[in-house]
Amino acid sequence: MSGNTFGKLFQVTTYGESHGKALGCVIDGCPPQIEISADDIQSELNRRKPGQSDITTQRKEADIVEILSGVFEGKTLGTPISLIIYNQDQRSKDYSNIKDVFRPNHADITYQAKYGHRDYRGGGRSSARETAMRVAAGAIAKKYLNSHGIQTEGYVSQIGSISAEYINLTSAKTNKYFFCDESKLEELDAMFLELIEEGNSVGAKLGVRVSNCPIGLGEPVFDKIDADIAKAIMSINAVKSVSIGHVDNILDLKGSEARDEITKEGFKSNNAGGILGGITNGDLIELEFIVKPTSSIKSTGQTINTAGEEVKVEVTGRHDPCVGIRAVPIAEAMINLVLMDHLLRNQAQCGKVDQSSPFEN
Amino acid sequence: MSGNTFGKLFQVTTYGESHGKALGCVIDGCPPQIEISADDIQSELNRRKPGQSDITTQRKEADIVEILSGVFEGKTLGTPISLIIYNQDQRSKDYSNIKDVFRPNHADITYQAKYGHRDYRGGGRSSARETAMRVAAGAIAKKYLNSHGIQTEGYVSQIGSISAEYINLTSAKTNKYFFCDESKLEELDAMFLELIEEGNSVGAKLGVRVSNCPIGLGEPVFDKIDADIAKAIMSINAVKSVSIGHVDNILDLKGSEARDEITKEGFKSNNAGGILGGITNGDLIELEFIVKPTSSIKSTGQTINTAGEEVKVEVTGRHDPCVGIRAVPIAEAMINLVLMDHLLRNQAQCGKVDQSSPFEN
Amino acid sequence: MSGNTFGKLFQVTTYGESHGKALGCVIDGCPPQIEISADDIQSELNRRKPGQSDITTQRKEADIVEILSGVFEGKTLGTPISLIIYNQDQRSKDYSNIKDVFRPNHADITYQAKYGHRDYRGGGRSSARETAMRVAAGAIAKKYLNSHGIQTEGYVSQIGSISAEYINLTSAKTNKYFFCDESKLEELDAMFLELIEEGNSVGAKLGVRVSNCPIGLGEPVFDKIDADIAKAIMSINAVKSVSIGHVDNILDLKGSEARDEITKEGFKSNNAGGILGGITNGDLIELEFIVKPTSSIKSTGQTINTAGEEVKVEVTGRHDPCVGIRAVPIAEAMINLVLMDHLLRNQAQCGKVDQSSPFEN
Amino acid sequence: MSGNTFGKLFQVTTYGESHGKALGCVIDGCPPQIEISADDIQSELNRRKPGQSDITTQRKEADIVEILSGVFEGKTLGTPISLIIYNQDQRSKDYSNIKDVFRPNHADITYQAKYGHRDYRGGGRSSARETAMRVAAGAIAKKYLNSHGIQTEGYVSQIGSISAEYINLTSAKTNKYFFCDESKLEELDAMFLELIEEGNSVGAKLGVRVSNCPIGLGEPVFDKIDADIAKAIMSINAVKSVSIGHVDNILDLKGSEARDEITKEGFKSNNAGGILGGITNGDLIELEFIVKPTSSIKSTGQTINTAGEEVKVEVTGRHDPCVGIRAVPIAEAMINLVLMDHLLRNQAQCGKVDQSSPFEN
Repeated sequence: MSGNTFGKLFQVTTYGESHGKALGCVIDGCPPQIEISADDIQSELNRRKPGQSDITTQRKEADIVEILSGVFEGKTLGTPISLIIYNQDQRSKDYSNIKDVFRPNHADITYQAKYGHRDYRGGGRSSARETAMRVAAGAIAKKYLNSHGIQTEGYVSQIGSISAEYINLTSAKTNKYFFCDESKLEELDAMFLELIEEGNSVGAKLGVRVSNCPIGLGEPVFDKIDADIAKAIMSINAVKSVSIGHVDNILDLKGSEARDEITKEGFKSNNAGGILGGITNGDLIELEFIVKPTSSIKSTGQTINTAGEEVKVEVTGRHDPCVGIRAVPIAEAMINLVLMDHLLRNQAQCGKVDQSSPFEN
Repeated sequence: MSGNTFGKLFQVTTYGESHGKALGCVIDGCPPQIEISADDIQSELNRRKPGQSDITTQRKEADIVEILSGVFEGKTLGTPISLIIYNQDQRSKDYSNIKDVFRPNHADITYQAKYGHRDYRGGGRSSARETAMRVAAGAIAKKYLNSHGIQTEGYVSQIGSISAEYINLTSAKTNKYFFCDESKLEELDAMFLELIEEGNSVGAKLGVRVSNCPIGLGEPVFDKIDADIAKAIMSINAVKSVSIGHVDNILDLKGSEARDEITKEGFKSNNAGGILGGITNGDLIELEFIVKPTSSIKSTGQTINTAGEEVKVEVTGRHDPCVGIRAVPIAEAMINLVLMDHLLRNQAQCGKVDQSSPFEN
Repeated sequence: MSGNTFGKLFQVTTYGESHGKALGCVIDGCPPQIEISADDIQSELNRRKPGQSDITTQRKEADIVEILSGVFEGKTLGTPISLIIYNQDQRSKDYSNIKDVFRPNHADITYQAKYGHRDYRGGGRSSARETAMRVAAGAIAKKYLNSHGIQTEGYVSQIGSISAEYINLTSAKTNKYFFCDESKLEELDAMFLELIEEGNSVGAKLGVRVSNCPIGLGEPVFDKIDADIAKAIMSINAVKSVSIGHVDNILDLKGSEARDEITKEGFKSNNAGGILGGITNGDLIELEFIVKPTSSIKSTGQTINTAGEEVKVEVTGRHDPCVGIRAVPIAEAMINLVLMDHLLRNQAQCGKVDQSSPFEN
Repeated sequence: MSGNTFGKLFQVTTYGESHGKALGCVIDGCPPQIEISADDIQSELNRRKPGQSDITTQRKEADIVEILSGVFEGKTLGTPISLIIYNQDQRSKDYSNIKDVFRPNHADITYQAKYGHRDYRGGGRSSARETAMRVAAGAIAKKYLNSHGIQTEGYVSQIGSISAEYINLTSAKTNKYFFCDESKLEELDAMFLELIEEGNSVGAKLGVRVSNCPIGLGEPVFDKIDADIAKAIMSINAVKSVSIGHVDNILDLKGSEARDEITKEGFKSNNAGGILGGITNGDLIELEFIVKPTSSIKSTGQTINTAGEEVKVEVTGRHDPCVGIRAVPIAEAMINLVLMDHLLRNQAQCGKVDQSSPFEN
């Protein structure tokens, strides 16, 4: 299986260069008879798309998704679902300043080395624009998961050095930073003004929580669900770290303190983050990850060109001062794809087994 | 592909319960004509096996590996390589105390819920004993990688709250803690004495470095090499977090500081940890991960049994006060499996492309 | 991996219902730097498309293919290649006569039973129209294979009871039946006139030959190249049988007669059809297959409807009196996809091995 | 996924050279709680093993299978099942006559060319001995399928030019030729006496029937169940042809005759062989295949050696005059593996859909 396919049973294959004709994906293995419309997908895409506020890139993409196959009379057929977004902002532009130059912190240099040929326009396939199709595919998984009561919610808990003091998932849905602590919004506004002015960027820390996930998902010993979550999150552009459960102070705890003791009603704590031995335990799944500062910044940097000469480069145009913010819907989508795939995998092997919770009610 | 197979081209399938007849693996897709002997594999296994020092579990396993197929006249045939270790410490033992009880922080409860049937002896398939075959398979990858100059080296940089002040890979090879800062060894000895006395445990922080890795490995957008590394590491028992590159202070840096500028001779810094856009950039690969405290401890804990009744449980026998220590050879093996798989994947698609480094000499 | 993906390294995923918005495919794993244009693909599609002569269905589809991604400045990027054909003949039509009726010999009844929901328009995903994307993807493989000297050529050797007396590959390229024996063309014309008049159909026998295939392709013991060829051919609509090499009289031969003895210059015969032990031996690959009579015929047939009632059905519209004819470019495409995939698989595992022929030039 | 793994969800990986230490397999993805014992597997192996009658090779292998993992207290755990057979007839023998010679009709020459290194002892991995593990793995699938009422039965219908006049599955179980027409047994005895005397061999035609297979199995458009059956059968040593349904006279029939009309009670005929559009239709699955004459024969043949010199070769030892006979349990096993895999795949995607038959029972 090649590198642009995610999932083993709910299998998503994406394609598309940032400034090519279109972005798209094909989802194979989706159960039949799920009610789905373009609107279900569009509403998720709208949460991620650029040009929405003063703090994200001003590229204006309508990003209108179209369903080309696999859905008939409003319901999935069980055949491959094809989704497409045509690139509308694809004006002929002058790329001469980056055509032969490797922008620092970008994949320009590695794509050139690996393939010997690259689409330099907007980073081609290495652009974060690719993640739009993750969100689109994730929307179908979300529809199915929600109908089974499973909810996946992301949030931002730190931007640069401004850190949340509490995690309020409702707050995270009501501000443009997806920030989980509303008391920090003014501080954030001030920081962003400054960043935009100096053409610089910062990183962020994010989290995702899954509530109501059934017990029993995960396929040891390699496709443990935490392993697949780590891969899913680390595959998102600019992510450098991922953790499951409560790890911030775990090295200060002893085994007797870190373990989650068990009662009739459930676990007494959730340091494990909802996963034991690579299998969901029915508790809240909790994970966190860190996104590095945006690479595309105005601030002049030193690099080399394709001829091997040292040059200076400045990435013009407006860019996100913190790409981490838009990672919220992307991370939710990736987690939903992991859960959907594991639901089907579990159903395949253990579909006939009674997998009810060991806990009272 | 099912959950006990790792890799897409250098494909390792493992099997075996902790207290069953044997552990083994089958490696399919290995290139022919690699010189390999049982000794090459045994020497790696010896680095990981229990019963070696006073700080690891006293289970005495000879852990002698045997090659059953795929190697002829000292060289790989290109056919599947089968490796096996018979369990010799498999005495009939009394498991009545854990047969019907879910040990806290263990996979007992999730295996029971998922499969409705489990091998309770020593944790069955969920035991860390499973990782022996990762090390065995990794030894074959290591032989191949070393012959191409690629070196993978692991170390421990923190145990409980005792943290290294520097990373010395040579030191990590000469003490029983794989610890990278020799000045801390006495402190560690004291802590372990205490832990053993109270039957408790602590977690650890570890790292792996890969030197001389060629440019161009990694398959975007989902099988980025950092994504596959994250999965490989997170699939190891008790690992809760993984990071690539320098992330400890990354939220304090701006984009202009965090990026690695480029000169004719190479990158000026390595915050990226040797990977850009999911593809190796020829620089040192650097990663870190955190292992939670050992779950099997004497200290009595509260739990429920299979009948749903609340009970107390105490895990008897000697156990590792810190399982993280033995994770060093395991993590090295997993990284070697990832590198080997990606070498072959890169060779399949881009084998005809010139992938030389863009840097001078 | 789900059912709409073919190949493990040169991985083709297709989508699209017969009367939906579009048909398309995504090809992942294609080597970079292959020169490819829409024309290269279009010319193959033109060989297969309906409405070309009086003997194929009169559905008029322009079938114009568009490349949406993966090709830049005329060369493949190594990223996923997306191809699309919009359905232009998708007029709103009255499907009330087949909406609730299972046409005999069609997949209507099995799709309904499996998915509980189906696109009844033109057979939806089960239509042979799906094969257009196999031809499109195969065209890219063909470009690569041809540049390495490998030629794949198909032909028809029997239609109904009219059988070729010799196989002339050049003849097969110059008549509308792809028939390999020109002396039978008049007989065929007469038979087709009759079939069209009575609204009936016949089956066909076809063959494919691959010349100049390198030695060493095939991955025993399950992905033998003959096994993958059998699967590729049997997956084409209406194919019921596939054979490799000379099998017509093989049960009349003894082992001493059927084996291909070996000389310095090569094999003395080619009963094996170019494959030994599942691996190409450097000789001509020869295979044959049989296609059943077209299912969509005017002739009234007995069936049941979705309510379980017995009804009569007549499939109106013009249809191919022999679908086997158009299977020639489709079979060539499938064989090219198999060869391409195995070339990459062989390159991955054995790329460093000397695989020269054991024969004198 | 590499070439020694079969199946996507019920995934069987085999290993072992003919004269190596052992043959084995690992089955991953097997549902938990299936009752299975070594005896269930042994009884299938006994049907295939050599040395049983005067018409098969006299190699005496006890072929005792052992279960190493994945089964506990008599039931599958859901973890990988490891099966092993140690080679007991592995005496040190003189292989000098075939070490450097390519036996005609064997894989010697292609293995040498592909891998540049081969185990020449008894054909190494290319030996039909490999198929023992297919039968072993198939036995587990069979246990599960039988418990769901599905029966897979193979038979031989032609050996050399002696052809059955009817197909009686009961007869096929009671004679050493697995022959479905008992009236031919004397003729067969005479032919075999002659073949053994002259050290020669013949081919055979076989068939497999599956009764009581549920409707809905198969994953279009590439993993149609007939496509997977074709691959499964063609991957068996010496098989050269496979067909589904009634194809012998299909080119003499018109569409109106070949289609299977439908009534309330079911199909009026079964030319389709139980499969429509790549999905089982609930009717009897019927397939046939042809096996070429045994390659290992006494009769002297011309060939070359590894130095490229022309030499004569005679394969000494007793061999099966017709390997096709022992293909009966092997083919049954492969079909059971295909069915098992497709049952799980169907359960994964469509497990929640009502897939009851459209027919009145």
